[in-house]
Amino acid sequence: MKSRFAGTLCIAALLVGCSSTAPTTTPSPVSSATPRLVPAPASMTMSGGDPFTIAATTTIVVDGSNPQAARTAELLAAVLRPSTGFPIPVTGNSGAGSIALRLAPDRASLGDEGYELSVTRDSVRIVAYRPAGLFRATQTVRQLLPPSIESDMKLGGVPWTIPALSISDQPRFAWRGAMLDVARHFFTVDEVKQYVDLLALYKMNVLHLHLSDDQGWRIEIKSHPELTTVGSKTQVGGGPGGFYTQADYADIVRYAQDRYVMIVPEIDMPGHTNAALSAFPALSCSTRPSVLYTGTDVGWSTFCVENEGSYALIDDIVREIAAMTPAPYFHMGGDEVHVLKPAQYQLFVERVQDIVNKHGKQLIGWEEILQSRLKSSSVLQQWRNDSLPGALHSGGKVIVSGARKTYLDMKYTKDTELGLTWAAIIEVRDAYDFNPGAYVKHVSESDILGVEAPMWSETVRNISAVQFLAVPRLQAIAEVGWTPQSVRNWESFRERIATHAPRWNFLGVNYNRSPQIAW
Amino acid sequence: MKSRFAGTLCIAALLVGCSSTAPTTTPSPVSSATPRLVPAPASMTMSGGDPFTIAATTTIVVDGSNPQAARTAELLAAVLRPSTGFPIPVTGNSGAGSIALRLAPDRASLGDEGYELSVTRDSVRIVAYRPAGLFRATQTVRQLLPPSIESDMKLGGVPWTIPALSISDQPRFAWRGAMLDVARHFFTVDEVKQYVDLLALYKMNVLHLHLSDDQGWRIEIKSHPELTTVGSKTQVGGGPGGFYTQADYADIVRYAQDRYVMIVPEIDMPGHTNAALSAFPALSCSTRPSVLYTGTDVGWSTFCVENEGSYALIDDIVREIAAMTPAPYFHMGGDEVHVLKPAQYQLFVERVQDIVNKHGKQLIGWEEILQSRLKSSSVLQQWRNDSLPGALHSGGKVIVSGARKTYLDMKYTKDTELGLTWAAIIEVRDAYDFNPGAYVKHVSESDILGVEAPMWSETVRNISAVQFLAVPRLQAIAEVGWTPQSVRNWESFRERIATHAPRWNFLGVNYNRSPQIAW
Repeated sequence: MKSRFAGTLCIAALLVGCSSTAPTTTPSPVSSATPRLVPAPASMTMSGGDPFTIAATTTIVVDGSNPQAARTAELLAAVLRPSTGFPIPVTGNSGAGSIALRLAPDRASLGDEGYELSVTRDSVRIVAYRPAGLFRATQTVRQLLPPSIESDMKLGGVPWTIPALSISDQPRFAWRGAMLDVARHFFTVDEVKQYVDLLALYKMNVLHLHLSDDQGWRIEIKSHPELTTVGSKTQVGGGPGGFYTQADYADIVRYAQDRYVMIVPEIDMPGHTNAALSAFPALSCSTRPSVLYTGTDVGWSTFCVENEGSYALIDDIVREIAAMTPAPYFHMGGDEVHVLKPAQYQLFVERVQDIVNKHGKQLIGWEEILQSRLKSSSVLQQWRNDSLPGALHSGGKVIVSGARKTYLDMKYTKDTELGLTWAAIIEVRDAYDFNPGAYVKHVSESDILGVEAPMWSETVRNISAVQFLAVPRLQAIAEVGWTPQSVRNWESFRERIATHAPRWNFLGVNYNRSPQIAW
Repeated sequence: MKSRFAGTLCIAALLVGCSSTAPTTTPSPVSSATPRLVPAPASMTMSGGDPFTIAATTTIVVDGSNPQAARTAELLAAVLRPSTGFPIPVTGNSGAGSIALRLAPDRASLGDEGYELSVTRDSVRIVAYRPAGLFRATQTVRQLLPPSIESDMKLGGVPWTIPALSISDQPRFAWRGAMLDVARHFFTVDEVKQYVDLLALYKMNVLHLHLSDDQGWRIEIKSHPELTTVGSKTQVGGGPGGFYTQADYADIVRYAQDRYVMIVPEIDMPGHTNAALSAFPALSCSTRPSVLYTGTDVGWSTFCVENEGSYALIDDIVREIAAMTPAPYFHMGGDEVHVLKPAQYQLFVERVQDIVNKHGKQLIGWEEILQSRLKSSSVLQQWRNDSLPGALHSGGKVIVSGARKTYLDMKYTKDTELGLTWAAIIEVRDAYDFNPGAYVKHVSESDILGVEAPMWSETVRNISAVQFLAVPRLQAIAEVGWTPQSVRNWESFRERIATHAPRWNFLGVNYNRSPQIAW
C-alpha cells in the first residue's frame, strides 16, 4: 500500500502515440478510437496495429506456483468465458493467442499496484511487481473489451477485440477508498459484494465498513452476543435491520481480498453508540435513554468514558474484530461527540488507541481525534474541515474525505430524491475537480495516504439506491485517487465515463443520469 | 381470487367529475391536478374540495379484532411514519383527521380485492369486503401522496396532502402475476422481497417462483438434500448459485402474504431438470450427461418417465413444497421437452397432476400440458402460441403470458444490453397495448384467470438488472390486468407512469428510461 506515482512515465493517458517523458497537462479530447478507461492510466500509447482478438483458442497464462496470481487469472477467465463462450483455460504454458500475467520480482519500481500492459495482434502481456498489480491490469483489460464482455450469457457476433497499445500505470495514492454505512441501513452480504465489485472495476482498494452507529450494531461479537441480539434489530425508518455473523464478515473479507480491496472495520465511539448502549445501558452516559432508535439525529449518545466497563467491552470488541481482519487498521470513528468535555474525549481516544495497538492494529479515526495525543502510526480521516493545522501529528498520515467533495450521500442537485445537503450539493464535476494533494490546508501531499468517498446511509435502503448516489461520482473519486493530477481532465472524464453506462446495464448497476455527463 | 370487474361503476378513471354509469372509452388526457395512479382505478371522481393533510395528530383507525386488517394498517403506518416524522398511531378509536380502514361484510359486490376510497379535508375512509381490498386501497393512498412519502428519513417542508376524491375500484382479472426465474440466476431472499414490494405497489397479486431449471435447484427438500447440496451450486455464467432453505421460503411466503401477493411455486418437469438430475443421475434420460450446467440451451434434459423412482422423488418434492405453500396451486412447468415421445410426455403430466392433487393443490402448467388429459381444476399458462384450440379443457382456466407481450426478459429495443429477442422486441407500448381478454384465439375472457409477466433470468444477475428490464413494462402489465379495458389509454399511461420515477428513486428501484415515456 505504499506505492506512489513518481518518475518519468509517459502520463499523457489520453493521447495517441504519446512518447513524452514529462507530464502533459493539457490532454487532447477523447477520440472515438481511444479506449475509454476510468481511471485514466498514467501512460497509454496506441500502437496503431491490429487488435488482439479473443478466440476459441485463447488461453490465460500464469505461473501457477503463485496462488494469488493464479486466482487473478481465474477471476479474469470468469469474466471472459460466459460472454464469449470460449473455454479460455488458465495454463502455465505460454503460446500464441495468450493473455499472459507475469510477476516480475525485479520490477519494484512498478510498486504494489502498478503494471505494464502490452497488447499486440498476437498476445496480451501483463507484467507487475505484485499480484495486486496483475489484478489491476485485468480490470484494464475488461474495460478495453466491449461492454458486452460483462454478459453472463454467451453472445454471438461480437468482435472481442482489445486495441493494440501499451500502458504503464500505477496509482497516485496508496489509499483509494469508499466507505459504506451499513449501520443506518443494513446491507446484505450480497449487496456489500456488489459494492466491492464496483470498487474493483475502478481500481479502488479500500472498503471501509461503518459497522455501528446509533441505529444499529452490525457485526457479531461472540463474547457479547447482546450487541446483535439487541442492537441490530432496526435501522433508520424502522426496518428490520440485521447484522453480519463472523462467518459473513469472513466471507466479505475473502471476497474483497480476491479483488485487492482491503476491508477496514469501523466501530464508531465514544459517540454514535446508541445501538451498543441499548444492549449495555449501564455503560451509557448519553443524554437520552438508550433504546432502539430509528431517527437521524447525531451527537447525543456516548459511552461513559470514566467507567472501566466501557474499556473492557471495547477491548473484547477490538480483539474479536482485529482477529478476523487482515488489514493492519482498526477505525474507531471518534466523530461528533457533543456531550463530553474535551478532556474526557481526549483521554478516551488515547485509551482506545492503546487497545487497538495492543491487538496489533493501527488506529484510524475521523479528524476529531486530532485533539488527542496520537502516535505516528495512527491515521486521521479528514472530513469536515478543509484546514487541519495539527494534522502533522508526529508524521501521521491523513485520508482526505472532504465532505464537500467526496461525500457520496450529498445530493447531485437540489432535486435529487436521495441524499442530504448539509455539507454541499455535489454534481459530478464537483467531485472530480479537486486535487486532494492540495485540498487540506497545512497538509501536504506527502502527508496524504489517499482519498476516500463515504456513503452514509440515512436515505438509502438498498444497493441500487447506493449506486444511484455513487455512480458516477464514485468513478470520479476513483480517478482522483489513481490518475496523476496532470493527466486528469474533466472534459475527457465526462466523455469517457459516458461510455461505461452500457457496462453498468449489463452488470445491473443503477446510476444517476447526470446531465453533466456526455451520455 | 375470484373477483372480476363487472357492473355499472363509473370507470372513467382519469376524468375529473365523472358521473357516468357506463364505460367511457376515450378518457381525457391527464391534467396536472389529476392523481397519476397506476394501475388506473376503475372509477375516480375528483371532488374539488380541500385535500386531506397528514399531520402530527393523524391516526389510522382499524378494527383491531381482525388481525389481517390491523396488519395492513401497520404496514401503511410504516410507510407514513419515517418520512412525516409523525407518530401515526394505529387505533380502534375513530376521530377527526383519521385514515379509517373498515371491512364491510355486507359489501360482497366489492369482491376480494375491491375497495372504495373517499378523501375529504377531514378524513380518509376506506371500505372493503375483504382485507386484501383494504391493502390494495392503502397502495392507492401511497400513490396519492407525494413521492417523498417513501423516504426512510424525516423530511421537512413537504405538504403531505391527499386530494379530495372518491374512488371505487376493483380488478378486471383475479390473477395479476409476475414470474421470477430464480434458477438461471439465483436471487437472495432480500431481492425477492424487493420484487414483492414492487408488485404490491402496483396491485399485482401473484409471484410465481421458477424454482428449478437445468442450471440450478433453488429450494431445500429435506427428504432429498442432494437436490441443493449438489444441484444449487452454480447458475448461468458460472456464479455460485444458491438456494432457499425452507425457513427462507416460509419467510418469503409470509412477507408476500402480508402484501396479498400469493407465492406460486414451480418445479419445472419433466424437462428443464438437469440440476435435479445432476443430484440423481440414475433418474436421467437426458441426451447429455447430467453434470452442472451454466449455459442457456433448452429442451435437452428430462426425467426418465418410465422409471418409478422419478415419481417417488416428485411425490416427495411436491409433498414438501405443498406443505409450506398456502396457495392452492403447484406449478409443474411442463414446457419445452424436446426429447420425449408425445405419449411419454402425456402420461407424465397426468401422473404429476395426480400427485399434485393428492397433496391438495391444483395443477398449473405451461401450455404444452394441454396435450394431456387435464382436470377442470388444472390451469394452463399460455406463453408461446396465440391460439389454443384445446384450451377449454373441461372448463379449465387460462393464464395469459404471451411471450410477445408479457415476457419481461425480451429487450425493449435491439440495443437494450440485457434481455433476449427470440419472441419479440417489446417496447413499453407493446406491453401495454393488448387486451388479454381477446388475445388468445379460441379462449374467451371468461376462460381467463388473468395475466402474468414472466422474467426469465438468463441475462440478469441481480434485482437491479431485473428492475431494469421490468420497470416500467411490469407496470404496464399491472394496468392490463387490473384496469377495465375501456378505461385504459396509452397516452394517459405514458404520462402517469412518468411521474413514478421519483418514487422509484426514493425506493432504490432501477428502471429503463424508455423514450416512449413522458419523463
